[in-house]
Amino acid sequence: MTKSVEIVEVGPRDGLQNDPVLMPTDVKIEFVQRLIDAGVKRMEAASFVHPKLVPAMADSAEVMQQVPRVDGVKYIGLALNEKGMRRALDSRCDEVNYVMVASPGFGLKNQNATPQQTADLFDQIAVLAHDDGVPVSVTVSVAFGDPFDGEVDPKILGELAGRARAAGAVEFALGDTIGVADPWAVRRALDIVKAQSGDMRIRMHFHNTRNTAMANIYAAIEAGVDVIDASVGGIGGCPFAPAATGNVATEDVVYMLDRAGIETGLDLDKLIETAKWLETDGLKHPVESALSRAGGFPKT
Amino acid sequence: MTKSVEIVEVGPRDGLQNDPVLMPTDVKIEFVQRLIDAGVKRMEAASFVHPKLVPAMADSAEVMQQVPRVDGVKYIGLALNEKGMRRALDSRCDEVNYVMVASPGFGLKNQNATPQQTADLFDQIAVLAHDDGVPVSVTVSVAFGDPFDGEVDPKILGELAGRARAAGAVEFALGDTIGVADPWAVRRALDIVKAQSGDMRIRMHFHNTRNTAMANIYAAIEAGVDVIDASVGGIGGCPFAPAATGNVATEDVVYMLDRAGIETGLDLDKLIETAKWLETDGLKHPVESALSRAGGFPKT
Repeated sequence: MTKSVEIVEVGPRDGLQNDPVLMPTDVKIEFVQRLIDAGVKRMEAASFVHPKLVPAMADSAEVMQQVPRVDGVKYIGLALNEKGMRRALDSRCDEVNYVMVASPGFGLKNQNATPQQTADLFDQIAVLAHDDGVPVSVTVSVAFGDPFDGEVDPKILGELAGRARAAGAVEFALGDTIGVADPWAVRRALDIVKAQSGDMRIRMHFHNTRNTAMANIYAAIEAGVDVIDASVGGIGGCPFAPAATGNVATEDVVYMLDRAGIETGLDLDKLIETAKWLETDGLKHPVESALSRAGGFPKT
Repeated sequence: MTKSVEIVEVGPRDGLQNDPVLMPTDVKIEFVQRLIDAGVKRMEAASFVHPKLVPAMADSAEVMQQVPRVDGVKYIGLALNEKGMRRALDSRCDEVNYVMVASPGFGLKNQNATPQQTADLFDQIAVLAHDDGVPVSVTVSVAFGDPFDGEVDPKILGELAGRARAAGAVEFALGDTIGVADPWAVRRALDIVKAQSGDMRIRMHFHNTRNTAMANIYAAIEAGVDVIDASVGGIGGCPFAPAATGNVATEDVVYMLDRAGIETGLDLDKLIETAKWLETDGLKHPVESALSRAGGFPKT
């Protein structure tokens, strides 16, 4: 059994990017500081995409200038093309995350590229990060289902893992962008990916849209995965199911792992406090996490 | 891998019992009919406890008179003492469910009995069901944690399984009454219970209070369990965490199992329809299931 799991906090990027509220830069910095106080060591904090497409991330360069540069805390910037990669590196991101797509339906709509084209582009721009000595990771979107194409053949996940490894990614993630995975599918996908992942770490990114995220995380951890994306408060929604929940909530994941004696280094009470701060101050609307409603157990 | 799982629908009893809205008898009958139309073959429909303690179940005898007696559909009545057992049998329940408690804190407050006393009482009243040829099952409440005592030693679950088996129960369930279990704890508990359960089937009853119910169900199924309690819409709340969610939602469980090719005999679309009927007509307030918000996948 895995004795520790690394949580990558995606609230300040994937969470805020899909929230209806535009959080001002200074509030983002407070958000980041609260996460650090809760023990977060690695977080998505910026996205270097076109500001017209993702207005919530338009201040990413400013955010990266202002985040506390604390020893042991790493900031991940998202980049989808060469320009984004250069901006992410210029902004001194500690890591750059790139997105490949598992299916053309979503790929063509979201970044105007097929799965192969996203892998080809990664070949070209990963070298920029290598030149700067900055680690680069890949997240595969719609890895378990595409809102336009439907089912995704998991074979593509193995192919993309091979491409990511060949281009020098240090980590490879499967993203259940629309929240359709089940834990048995997670295991099948991991069997395929592991055969191609070599030394790359494997990370999982689940949305709780259909209430399966926690089961999927458990299945992934049992299959040996030890890096999990999560978003405080579960912020982030789902553009394809507007009424639904989004990212799995960090505090829910930490509760489950704490109960099982699996270390995350995160402080559950401070995460819940941060989720409540998002509700009252940060975003001023309710968030979706279970733990912010129910509290931990046993009560401390 | 298990190829079929039986879902016991608990909405009309455990769900309604803890809902703030008192559903009139004729609406309960419509609820039951909708569940049958969705494929439900086994459901909790009545509780023979003191009407002052559980007003929502005061009409249980009338409900049992009016439910459609359809071939292959079984109604479960809850009984906690001799009087309740006699009323359940008089009302022609197809099965009677009895509750043992795993911990004295909750036991003394909820049914004025310690774990041993609940087992002793079961010895006395199970014979009434045996005499009538009616199968009787046991659910252990607070099996994974007690709101007053905190941690529960899983050894008690093995002891209670042995007592239930000796008294002739055909099924033994672990109930996570306050929604604190994690999937690793589920596996440990099942190892202990299986050693004492003999021919009894094992059923699991999870609340999604802390977002762990689906992971717990997945862990239980992987450990060989093939009977799962669930409540359409996730109705039922948690008296110990008023803001929190309650029973795991039937449609969420069915979605996860459908995706994995595990048969339940239930119709996901009709379950979602029933959850929405609860919102608009049955209870006239929002329900908590993810599937009623997000819809299934792939879209049909």
